[in-house]
Amino acid sequence: MNVTIIGLGLIGGSLALSLRQHGLAQRIVGVEQSAAHAQRALELALVDEIETDLAAAVSQADLIVVAVPMDAMVTVLPPVLDAVAAHQVVIDVGSTKQALLAAVAQHPNRGRFVAVHPMAGTEHSGPDAAIAGLFEGKTVVLCDADRSDADALHIVEQLFHALPMRLLYLDGADHDLHTAYVSHISHITSFALALTVLEKEKEEQRIFDLASGGFESTVRLAKSSPATWVPIFRQNRLNVLDVLDEHLHQLQHLRDLLAKEDYTGLTEQIQQANHIRKILP
Amino acid sequence: MNVTIIGLGLIGGSLALSLRQHGLAQRIVGVEQSAAHAQRALELALVDEIETDLAAAVSQADLIVVAVPMDAMVTVLPPVLDAVAAHQVVIDVGSTKQALLAAVAQHPNRGRFVAVHPMAGTEHSGPDAAIAGLFEGKTVVLCDADRSDADALHIVEQLFHALPMRLLYLDGADHDLHTAYVSHISHITSFALALTVLEKEKEEQRIFDLASGGFESTVRLAKSSPATWVPIFRQNRLNVLDVLDEHLHQLQHLRDLLAKEDYTGLTEQIQQANHIRKILP
Repeated sequence: MNVTIIGLGLIGGSLALSLRQHGLAQRIVGVEQSAAHAQRALELALVDEIETDLAAAVSQADLIVVAVPMDAMVTVLPPVLDAVAAHQVVIDVGSTKQALLAAVAQHPNRGRFVAVHPMAGTEHSGPDAAIAGLFEGKTVVLCDADRSDADALHIVEQLFHALPMRLLYLDGADHDLHTAYVSHISHITSFALALTVLEKEKEEQRIFDLASGGFESTVRLAKSSPATWVPIFRQNRLNVLDVLDEHLHQLQHLRDLLAKEDYTGLTEQIQQANHIRKILP
Repeated sequence: MNVTIIGLGLIGGSLALSLRQHGLAQRIVGVEQSAAHAQRALELALVDEIETDLAAAVSQADLIVVAVPMDAMVTVLPPVLDAVAAHQVVIDVGSTKQALLAAVAQHPNRGRFVAVHPMAGTEHSGPDAAIAGLFEGKTVVLCDADRSDADALHIVEQLFHALPMRLLYLDGADHDLHTAYVSHISHITSFALALTVLEKEKEEQRIFDLASGGFESTVRLAKSSPATWVPIFRQNRLNVLDVLDEHLHQLQHLRDLLAKEDYTGLTEQIQQANHIRKILP
């Protein structure tokens, strides 16, 4: 299979490595707006070739992967679909789905598009962040799969089965709600935690000599790029606000229990929180 | 060296394994309130023997380690100090220090005590959670070290150097402020995040099929035991409230920027949060 990947960052680059490692791509063409990233993607052998003309890059591929930030996704996907022929398949790998699905809902080539979200990532970005095993054993969500042509869907299912990933089918609205809970809120919390400690650091230079595993684990996501995350928060704004309000409510409740020294209440809340073990054993 | 460890949970048990692995303890006696944990500590060979009489356990040891939850720490440490002779050394391994240091400030054997906080842990508890390499390469804080006898301090320094750990010296007040930032607040945030998603789970059964690395990383600490953490929050209440209020302020600010669609402001805040890279590269 010949593959064209538009956007050679963490996700696009990792997919390139995975496809090659599993013998799923014979030739990979990359499209990348940043000249520095394009050059680096060649050096890292993520792609065989860089193509600057989008239509030319699309015409050469059996599979076209759109792996740009979510704000660019809604403008890049329609012209890609304009250019595809009946045998070609297009996927995105974006973190929000409703806006993107709406942008192409009436497109005459809608059937050639399969909306895909591989639930994997790191706090790093750009071609240097690409990792061959990033997707292995993780879940990939296929959204509104009934709107894709059966043959296109089958090709995409075979591909992600082979990585191997676990396939999950959701409609776009459910996808965006669920990712607000399991991904987007964690990032907001982590950004706020980093801002909290950085605020204190102004006064206390040596405070972070103590940074240990627990802190690193909760604040790791705060290294993530705004170019990736602001468009995600923008496209999933109402769900993120909904979850964030619940989170603020829970934090405020814990704060109030501690302020009034209700240690029985605090113990009960932590026991309740411990039930997360049934979700993440 | 003969060692007595009072409290055979995650920290006491891990220290037993580390001391033995590095040939630092010839014989380890354990004191443990829970009969089940005492039995398990023997099965796991964390200790050679369980002693139920505290004074007898103390009298046999060159080094006595008090590794009980912080609420028990302030009641257990004074009678331990009552029982020690001039050649013996006592350490705690607790996560808060000011209340404990105050509890023994006027004790006639204060000099035999060295206040120690190894900055390492996991979300698990009990003897089964003990890990031999838990402390390796981590930081250990020695608090108010000038209040310990020189020979006692020297023995403790040699011991933690051998594990090996990086030694840091702080007074009790600075320790408690700094741990509020780098450890205690991460736990509160994680508990609140777990409560947030568990609240939503009542409505949405399948939401957590999607749980991925980022979520797991931020919510992992929410598995931690209230028996460990409520006493820590209690003893460090004012510092924790101070940090928590700053964190609530930062979260509310991010929420307001998203609510009013100020994406430039949101980008600036995330760029600011990214500076956490200079603390955790």
